[in-house]
Amino acid sequence: MRNVGILGGGQLARMLALAGYPIGLHCTAFDTNPNACAGAVAPLTTGSFDDASQVASWAQAHDVITLEFENVPAGTVAGLAHQFPVAPGADALRVTQDRLEEKQLFGSLGIRTAPFAAVRSLEELTEAIARIGVPAVLKTRRFGYDGKGQFRLQRPEQAEEAWRALNGAPAILEGFVPFDAEYAIVAVRNRAGEVRCYPPIRTVHHDGILRFARPLLDAELQRDAQRIAQTVSEALRYVGVITIETFAVQGALLGNEIAPRVHNSAHWTIEGAETSQFENHLRAVCDLPLGDCSMRGECALVNLLGELPSVNAVLALPGVHLHDYGKEARPGRKVGHLTVTADTASQLAQRLEATVRLLPREVQDVARQLTTPS
Amino acid sequence: MRNVGILGGGQLARMLALAGYPIGLHCTAFDTNPNACAGAVAPLTTGSFDDASQVASWAQAHDVITLEFENVPAGTVAGLAHQFPVAPGADALRVTQDRLEEKQLFGSLGIRTAPFAAVRSLEELTEAIARIGVPAVLKTRRFGYDGKGQFRLQRPEQAEEAWRALNGAPAILEGFVPFDAEYAIVAVRNRAGEVRCYPPIRTVHHDGILRFARPLLDAELQRDAQRIAQTVSEALRYVGVITIETFAVQGALLGNEIAPRVHNSAHWTIEGAETSQFENHLRAVCDLPLGDCSMRGECALVNLLGELPSVNAVLALPGVHLHDYGKEARPGRKVGHLTVTADTASQLAQRLEATVRLLPREVQDVARQLTTPS
Repeated sequence: MRNVGILGGGQLARMLALAGYPIGLHCTAFDTNPNACAGAVAPLTTGSFDDASQVASWAQAHDVITLEFENVPAGTVAGLAHQFPVAPGADALRVTQDRLEEKQLFGSLGIRTAPFAAVRSLEELTEAIARIGVPAVLKTRRFGYDGKGQFRLQRPEQAEEAWRALNGAPAILEGFVPFDAEYAIVAVRNRAGEVRCYPPIRTVHHDGILRFARPLLDAELQRDAQRIAQTVSEALRYVGVITIETFAVQGALLGNEIAPRVHNSAHWTIEGAETSQFENHLRAVCDLPLGDCSMRGECALVNLLGELPSVNAVLALPGVHLHDYGKEARPGRKVGHLTVTADTASQLAQRLEATVRLLPREVQDVARQLTTPS
Repeated sequence: MRNVGILGGGQLARMLALAGYPIGLHCTAFDTNPNACAGAVAPLTTGSFDDASQVASWAQAHDVITLEFENVPAGTVAGLAHQFPVAPGADALRVTQDRLEEKQLFGSLGIRTAPFAAVRSLEELTEAIARIGVPAVLKTRRFGYDGKGQFRLQRPEQAEEAWRALNGAPAILEGFVPFDAEYAIVAVRNRAGEVRCYPPIRTVHHDGILRFARPLLDAELQRDAQRIAQTVSEALRYVGVITIETFAVQGALLGNEIAPRVHNSAHWTIEGAETSQFENHLRAVCDLPLGDCSMRGECALVNLLGELPSVNAVLALPGVHLHDYGKEARPGRKVGHLTVTADTASQLAQRLEATVRLLPREVQDVARQLTTPS
C-alpha cells in the first residue's frame, strides 16, 4: 500500500503526510475547507463529508482510507468501508463519537470511570444531579472538543441553565473526580492485534484546551496504560493510533474519553520517540510493521495558540523544535507546537522555563505543573 | 523569508523541502528532469540551468535561492545573484566546481592536502607523475562525482591511457595518501559569520560511492574539523551548509574536496542530531538562528543503492529509520538511506549488523569498518 487518503485536512493530516514521505507513503487529504493546512504539503480535495459519492470518488485513488478527526459522519465511513479498506473502522468511530457509548464501553471492559448518567431531558438531568451530586459537568454526547459543548454545574439549581446552554442536545452528566493529574494513553494497534503503547503522557489543560504535555516513565502507570490501551483497542477491533484520555486518582487511571486518531498530546513523539505517532499510525493502517514507542531522552510538548511567538526567539533556544502548521493567526486557534528535548529532567525543566517565557503570561505558571511533582 | 527556491530537484532538495515545512518555510525546486524526486513533496519547475531568463523567471517567486548540487553553471548563479539573494554565492560555487581551485584554496589557508599538480596535456601529466609518483589519481577538474571522471594510475606507463580516458579535459593529478580513515566535515555558517560544526563523520566508500557513515565523538578530530570548517567557510564568505571531505593521516585531517551543499554523509542528522543539516541549511540561508549540531545518542547512516531492500524487513528493525526517496530502481542509483540509532556504541554495532544483512553481500563487510577500531 502506498497511497493513503485522509478524511480531514488539518494539522494532524499535515503531520501524517510529512511522516509518510520518508517511508514511501503518499497521503492526500479531503476537507471542506480549501485552505486546510495539510494542503500546503500534500494534495487536498475539497468537498462535503455528507456527500457519500463525492467522498467515494476521492477515495478510489487510494489504497487505504484513514481519518484525522472523529466527527466524520460514521455513515460516510461505513459506506466507504464497503468499497475500500478503512482504518480505523466505522464501529470504532460510532463509539468514540458518543461520550455515553465511550463510558459504557469502559464500564463493560472493567475500566473505572467517573460516575455518569445519560441525560435526554431536564427531568433526567435533575435526577442525575440528585444521584451523582455536584460539582459535575454536563456534556453533549456528540461533537464536543476542546471544552466546547460543556457546562460545569456547581449547584443543583443550575440544572435548567445547563440544559438550555446545551440546546437540549442528548447529553451525559459526569461527576467530578478529584484527580491528581490527567494522562493521555496513546497506543497503536495493527490488524494482527499487536498493540504498542507510548509512555503515559501527563497533560495540562487551560481553559479546557491542552496546553502542555510530557511523557513520564512510571512503571506502574505504564502497566495500567498498556492494559487499558490493549483492552479498549481490542474491543473496538481498532487499527491505527488510538488515544484514551484518563484521570489519575491515587495511582490508578480512570477512563475519560477516546479519540480514534493521532492526538495533540503525543506530538512530542516526532522528536521524542523512536517512531512518531504519525509514522506509527500510517504503518498500522498500511499493514507495515509497528515501530518502537520508546522515548528518546526527556521531552515536553508546548502548544502554540492564537499566534506563533517570534520564530527567531524560538529557533535560538537549544533543544526546542518548531512545528508551524501554516495556519492564519486567530484567537485560541492551534497554530503550532514546540517540542522541547533534553538529556535529563533538570535540563528539561530549565529549557521548558526558557521556552514558556515566550508564551502569554497566563499559561506560564500552568506549564510548571509538568516539571514539579504533583 | 518564507519561500526558498532550490536549484536541483533530487533527494537533497526533497529532504530540504521536508525540513522546511515544520519551521514555516516553503521550498520549490528547479530541475531539468520532470520526474525529479523532490517534485513529490514540493512544487517542481522544469527547465534548463543554462537558460538564465527561465531560471530568473522561476526565481522571482522566492525570497532566497539556494542549490542542492554544485554543477549549476556558476554564471547562472552569478546572474541570479544580481537580482535575488542567493546562498551559497557564485564565488563559493566557482571554487568548489574546480578540484584545482579547491586544492589551491586549502593550500592558501594552511590546510594540508595530498600532493597535486594541474594537468592540461599529456606532457604535463608525464611531468606530474615524475614529481608526485604512483599510485596516483587523475581527475577531471570539473563535473566529477561518485568516482566518475577519474582514472587510477598504478604505473607511470599508464599516463597515455589515463589522459585518453579523461578525453583531454583539464585535470588534476593527486598523489595517493596512505590514510587511516576518511572523514566528512559538515558545518553551517550564517551571514553574520557564525560557524557550527557537526561531529566529524567517518565515511566508508565502496567502488567510489559513499555507502556508510557514522559521526564520532573525538575531541582532537573535532577541534581540527571546526578549525578547517571555520577557515574554509570564512574564506568563501559562505552561507549555508558546507561539506569538506578529508583524509585522516596519523590523527590529522587533510583537505580533499569541498561540496557547497548538504551532503550524503550527514543524512543521519535527521534523527541523530538536535538539528538536521537540512533544517540548518535553511535556517542559514533564511537568516534564522542556527540550530544545535550536537548528536542525540549513537547513530550510523546506511545508503541504499540500486533498489530498496524489503520495506517490511527494514521497518521491523528497532532503531532503524527509512528514507525512501521515491526514485525508480536503477543499478547504482541512490534510492534511499537508513539511519540506525542506538543508545550505546555496542547497541549500534548490533543494530548495524542486523541492518546490513538486508544489503548485498559485497558491502556487508565494508560496513564493519564503522564499528571496528581503525
